[in-house]
Amino acid sequence: MKAAEFTDIDIMRQCIQRLGDGGVFLVSGTQANPMTIGWGVIGRVWGRPVFQVLVRPSRHSFSLVEALGEFTVCIPDANHKQALALCGSRSGRELNKIEACGLSVSRSAHVGVPFITECVAHYECRVIHVNDVVNAALDPQIVADSYPAGDFHRVYFGEILGVYRH
Amino acid sequence: MKAAEFTDIDIMRQCIQRLGDGGVFLVSGTQANPMTIGWGVIGRVWGRPVFQVLVRPSRHSFSLVEALGEFTVCIPDANHKQALALCGSRSGRELNKIEACGLSVSRSAHVGVPFITECVAHYECRVIHVNDVVNAALDPQIVADSYPAGDFHRVYFGEILGVYRH
Repeated sequence: MKAAEFTDIDIMRQCIQRLGDGGVFLVSGTQANPMTIGWGVIGRVWGRPVFQVLVRPSRHSFSLVEALGEFTVCIPDANHKQALALCGSRSGRELNKIEACGLSVSRSAHVGVPFITECVAHYECRVIHVNDVVNAALDPQIVADSYPAGDFHRVYFGEILGVYRH
Repeated sequence: MKAAEFTDIDIMRQCIQRLGDGGVFLVSGTQANPMTIGWGVIGRVWGRPVFQVLVRPSRHSFSLVEALGEFTVCIPDANHKQALALCGSRSGRELNKIEACGLSVSRSAHVGVPFITECVAHYECRVIHVNDVVNAALDPQIVADSYPAGDFHRVYFGEILGVYRH
């Protein structure tokens, strides 16, 4: 595990590309509950490197991020398609998804949430701001496409405390 | 002007690096009012490429983005330090900053806001969501550092409609 700059362009490229092609793992809780996400935003806010993720209140991950205020984002390699499919469709309330996927986890350097050892890189993040997607201020087409049930996402602004390539 | 993918990693790297080193230009209004920003977040939300920018309600740019719902983000080259300093300290209410900087603008392909011709690349964005930084949900240290006057930013989620290298 090698520390990298948050602007490490190889890691950022892999992350952005994976977000649009199969997803990446959002890991929450000290027991490492992975959820597949296809949305994420990386940049700089308040002078700090930031990774933003969105989680619906109905998700198990929601209560875990709320409780701990920390998460990791783990970038899968090409062999993780099945794991991504499982972690995007099953809930951590029902099963231990790390075990079910045959994956393992390692202790993070900066947060209490572990990272997935088999991933190619990961971000370690601490929540510094929380916001909610506002129905009335969102494009109506997106409301219709993404929120037929009205379960608007919470937006977590995670300060990137460390980025590591494995 | 050459169309590029929003994930074009050279443009994204230049943008993120410039955000942390001198800033980039956020341009708003049909008359092209440039403001220097050091914060910005790029990624994918609601299945769309997104560039998020933050603007304080007191800024002239705020009323321009509110009125038109569009903006461009223009990435300067190494010769634009003076222009970045001016556009970060003067208001478009007082002067035409493009003229004052000796810059010129060109018509965008997807939005009514022009881009700065002399920049090395630019993003064209349409606002699809608006949100406000919430005092009570923000790290107290950031509140103290960034908001002594309580003028919390509005967050604009801009769908990236085009990315161009010049």
